[in-house]
Amino acid sequence: VLTATEGPDTQGWRELFAGRVAGMENDALATLLGLAGREDVISFAGGLPDPATFMTDRLAEVARQAIVDEPGVALQYEPTPGLPRTRDWFRSYLARREGVATTFESVMVTSGGVEALDLLNKVLVDPGDVVLMEAPSYLGAEMVTTSYQGEVVGVPMDDDGPRVDLLRDTLDALARRGRRPKFIYTIPDYQNPSGITLTGERRAALVALAAERALLLVEDIAYRRLGTGDAQPPTLWSLNPAGVVLIDTFAKTFFPAARVACVAAPPELIRVMTLAKQTTDQFASTLSQSMLLAYDRQGWLDEQVARARTIYTRRRDAMLDAMGRVLPAGLQWTRPGGGFFTWLTLPEGVDATALAPQAMARGVAYVPGQPFFTRGVDGRRYLRLSYSYVAVDGIDEGLRRLAAVIEQASAPSGEGI
Amino acid sequence: VLTATEGPDTQGWRELFAGRVAGMENDALATLLGLAGREDVISFAGGLPDPATFMTDRLAEVARQAIVDEPGVALQYEPTPGLPRTRDWFRSYLARREGVATTFESVMVTSGGVEALDLLNKVLVDPGDVVLMEAPSYLGAEMVTTSYQGEVVGVPMDDDGPRVDLLRDTLDALARRGRRPKFIYTIPDYQNPSGITLTGERRAALVALAAERALLLVEDIAYRRLGTGDAQPPTLWSLNPAGVVLIDTFAKTFFPAARVACVAAPPELIRVMTLAKQTTDQFASTLSQSMLLAYDRQGWLDEQVARARTIYTRRRDAMLDAMGRVLPAGLQWTRPGGGFFTWLTLPEGVDATALAPQAMARGVAYVPGQPFFTRGVDGRRYLRLSYSYVAVDGIDEGLRRLAAVIEQASAPSGEGI
Repeated sequence: VLTATEGPDTQGWRELFAGRVAGMENDALATLLGLAGREDVISFAGGLPDPATFMTDRLAEVARQAIVDEPGVALQYEPTPGLPRTRDWFRSYLARREGVATTFESVMVTSGGVEALDLLNKVLVDPGDVVLMEAPSYLGAEMVTTSYQGEVVGVPMDDDGPRVDLLRDTLDALARRGRRPKFIYTIPDYQNPSGITLTGERRAALVALAAERALLLVEDIAYRRLGTGDAQPPTLWSLNPAGVVLIDTFAKTFFPAARVACVAAPPELIRVMTLAKQTTDQFASTLSQSMLLAYDRQGWLDEQVARARTIYTRRRDAMLDAMGRVLPAGLQWTRPGGGFFTWLTLPEGVDATALAPQAMARGVAYVPGQPFFTRGVDGRRYLRLSYSYVAVDGIDEGLRRLAAVIEQASAPSGEGI
Repeated sequence: VLTATEGPDTQGWRELFAGRVAGMENDALATLLGLAGREDVISFAGGLPDPATFMTDRLAEVARQAIVDEPGVALQYEPTPGLPRTRDWFRSYLARREGVATTFESVMVTSGGVEALDLLNKVLVDPGDVVLMEAPSYLGAEMVTTSYQGEVVGVPMDDDGPRVDLLRDTLDALARRGRRPKFIYTIPDYQNPSGITLTGERRAALVALAAERALLLVEDIAYRRLGTGDAQPPTLWSLNPAGVVLIDTFAKTFFPAARVACVAAPPELIRVMTLAKQTTDQFASTLSQSMLLAYDRQGWLDEQVARARTIYTRRRDAMLDAMGRVLPAGLQWTRPGGGFFTWLTLPEGVDATALAPQAMARGVAYVPGQPFFTRGVDGRRYLRLSYSYVAVDGIDEGLRRLAAVIEQASAPSGEGI
């Protein structure tokens, strides 16, 4: 048995790297996921669903059944845009939940929400192209665009969502430079990382501006099913299906490893995204698709989502309650109506990135806000706290540890922060 | 309930398409898969594994068990390069099968073999870069490279595999134009589409030339485990692990919908392919990974592979026997030592693409050879016959139908072909 060569780039393969690799050299996400692993740390870092929301025995049963009942479907190669039955299922799912019927050619299945973004960026983004995102926004979405050498431009948010007036200014400024953005990416419900929900009024204004400027809207509704109440503003897609790409992942409501998301979009985009998917993973797991449909048929998807909402609502409540009691005066944070996250603003001059190692030393983890902003924007005062993965009895203690670290840093003698 | 807008590109979204979409507009693969669907047609077209090789009850059982035993692993988000246990398993699998030990940092898990190619092309291929492939080669591999606006240059084959002498000439010619190919892609075992196996002597020459010219070798061993005999030349990777990317998909030996392949490569490439995978599907299904490991632990993977080899060997034998008896004199075809395919050369002047609709009308399907060649190469005389999906008693009848169509086309009166 020989041993393969180890170590640095002895063969000069780095010389072969494409230009786009420079845009991928961002280890922020990996670092972030790495923070969550230690046993003695109460982690508000990861944005993971809690496995307690999964109904394990039922998932095991639908997996077994899908293979036994239709091995030729659940095990075999299948069409790139998804099983026809999955596409039809998603159409009825959207009609039921969002009140809008759509065509078979307007929907497809992808291997998770990020893959949908990958396909979309692959077919739309040439090097140097502009993509707009909320500032702050989901780090993974920004990484996809930069992996295709696109340029991300941020649109500031307030408590009602992205500022449509500032978006108009940005579009004007870009137009003066002769540039048309390829799309704007938004997470309207309980946004990652801010927890903010785009209001109904602001949604209408955003859709109207986008239609006026022929700006493609990309709407990621990863957390929409995990609201704490029942009243929700309509999806952007339901306001204008011809102008919106809706990405609905089942990672948080079914289970992440299923790697199943569904997309609704103008058919011209579905067509080219399907072409792109032919040369990536070819099709999303049909075992997962079969499981998802069987799960929903038996009413278990709704049941699991209801169970998840109960768990996350309890944690959200415990989180906001503890923040009010435990954190030092003068801090600000968002009050999410669902999802996984709240967004904390530290006192002027306190740097959440610099503070993270001290927090870890005290046994509490969070994600510093800076990576959620594009280069050049100062996001040092912000940090993201996720309550999705922390049991209620850990929340109080975790926040006490965090409060102690912030207090120390905010004290007049808190040097070097 | 509203209705989403249908029809052509009313919103002008096509204007947003990136330059690389032009390289994706290849519906040859979709057309090819479409040929296989009709019930009354004996199809030698698709390259699908026969579901009869899957041990359905056992697969159902490992799926159920993987979820029940470790829901936190089988259902949850997991590391991008694969579960650590999967990477270790693949290292021992390679040591056992290929006699070479390798490091943890030199292997990763991808969502099928094509995704491995997608990641590799994404990190290596800038627009206009040259990638070498056997001529003919796997259509999907060519489509991946053109989706990144790379240029595919073919290396002609003979019965021993790609011609290393002609590869040297091609490298010389490219060097004179100041161009270094990013890699050469090869399927050394029972190649798709030709069925040809690269001989041991030719493998040594190819590895030596590649090392001399710092040419990265990419080896796709999709069919290697499906040989009809036991003696096989070594993998290219085992001859020089520091210079070869080995892609080992389990689509044909486990099941396609698992979407699991493993890659062994220089660690510098694994590192950047992992970065690229962070922004595609983030990780390959951990349910599938858990199932694969459990399946192998119980000896079922070996058992399923043995069963598949028996089935495909019987079909290969029936195919070659029938071809000798039934096809008109003067035709040539390859005699594969395993895998799914044989490659037929028609008489001078007979065009396999033009003949395909007539064959369909007679109730037999195949894949014309032209799409397996790069633009500018005349592949009209060739066609691919796959025997993997046709039961033994259909092979004879399918070939009789094909023989009739070829005879008619070859007859002096066979006009317009």
